Amino acid sequence: MQQLENIRIVLVEPQHPGNIGAAARAMKAMGLSDLALVMPHAFPHAVATARAAGADELLEAAGCFDSLAAAIADCRLVIGASARRRHLDLPALDPRESAQQACGVEGQVALVFGRERSGLSNDELDLCHRHLMIPANPGYASLNLAAAVQVVCYEVRMAALAGEQVEQTGELAPTQDLERFFQHLQDVLVAGDFLDPEKPKLLLRRLRRLFHRAQLEAVEVQLLRGVLTALDPRKRRP
Amino acid sequence: MQQLENIRIVLVEPQHPGNIGAAARAMKAMGLSDLALVMPHAFPHAVATARAAGADELLEAAGCFDSLAAAIADCRLVIGASARRRHLDLPALDPRESAQQACGVEGQVALVFGRERSGLSNDELDLCHRHLMIPANPGYASLNLAAAVQVVCYEVRMAALAGEQVEQTGELAPTQDLERFFQHLQDVLVAGDFLDPEKPKLLLRRLRRLFHRAQLEAVEVQLLRGVLTALDPRKRRP
Repeated sequence: MQQLENIRIVLVEPQHPGNIGAAARAMKAMGLSDLALVMPHAFPHAVATARAAGADELLEAAGCFDSLAAAIADCRLVIGASARRRHLDLPALDPRESAQQACGVEGQVALVFGRERSGLSNDELDLCHRHLMIPANPGYASLNLAAAVQVVCYEVRMAALAGEQVEQTGELAPTQDLERFFQHLQDVLVAGDFLDPEKPKLLLRRLRRLFHRAQLEAVEVQLLRGVLTALDPRKRRP
Repeated sequence: MQQLENIRIVLVEPQHPGNIGAAARAMKAMGLSDLALVMPHAFPHAVATARAAGADELLEAAGCFDSLAAAIADCRLVIGASARRRHLDLPALDPRESAQQACGVEGQVALVFGRERSGLSNDELDLCHRHLMIPANPGYASLNLAAAVQVVCYEVRMAALAGEQVEQTGELAPTQDLERFFQHLQDVLVAGDFLDPEKPKLLLRRLRRLFHRAQLEAVEVQLLRGVLTALDPRKRRP
């Protein structure tokens, strides 16, 4: 199925090589093949290969990256798994909604999973366009990393099998263009004395969040950058 | 949730104690607690306890039985997982359909998983009222036992949660505030020579569309209006 080929599973700093192998096995069983690793603690590793149980070609082909930003640079939709509610959170999707959105996009999609103990950092979650939360027992929300990957990949397969198509109007902007827009926005807002350059975080996070929610198309990012250029206070100063 | 208490996970002759522990963890994370073991090869076992990662009270309370028939004697609905199509198979349910049926029953329900290598025997499948098949990659239908338990328990939780309200994070902006924002945006863009005041329609329509898609909250509209005020070129003209 075409949609399955476009979906990348990204593991950020996985601690245990066994979890990498089990995640690869879960992916292959559900028909996914694109695995990306951000700073794995131990990889390649014999335990990963053993737990992959025949899915080792996914391990061999896995991309290794220095940062989450690099692992998702070419992705048009990035969904990050989060186990907790944070201040200023995006509305969290469940795995089913996430899978339906992921299968509705033309182009590369990333589903991102954080460290076994601490998950994704706030900065990493800020790089995600959507947050995903697996509905778990509030008293024991302790899913194993590979189990979380299994649940999400299962939902991706179910969505792909259902042929469910979310309506898509235009080509979504790649993450790197979005990040350039956010930087441009920050620069103009600092120049306009709207942002304190020392602590721009909170307001910027709010703005990122609302623009991520809109799922900007490539042409819309160009439009917004045109707006910023037209309103940049620096161009009027002598 | 009441339905979750009625659902028993039955593992038939699990070979690896690690899988018993991982299954217990998957169950507890999804809010299930009733685990039954039929002739486990090694149980109790330190590896099971380690992999249970805090779900060890499920292991301590697990019932051990000599036969599948004994483990399901009190159950009103029994659904058995099957990885293959057999002659004379029952029509197979997927995990979602299985969970919906399981949660719709008053009284005890069993979800039965077979051996890691060979699954359930034909005689055991004959004891099941329904068969369950996880839709997998036809070329590699090799789900780990605990991963299969995780997927099915996840669907049980989703079915039990269904009908509960979807959380809304913030209060959405009323239309009149949105329209004031769009008017403000238009005024500032005209002042910044970005919009032709004679025919602002197309660009404005694009901008309206993307902000509508974001479903702005009231507080976000205030934030965006603050941005416009800060960047308004008119405030800098003499």
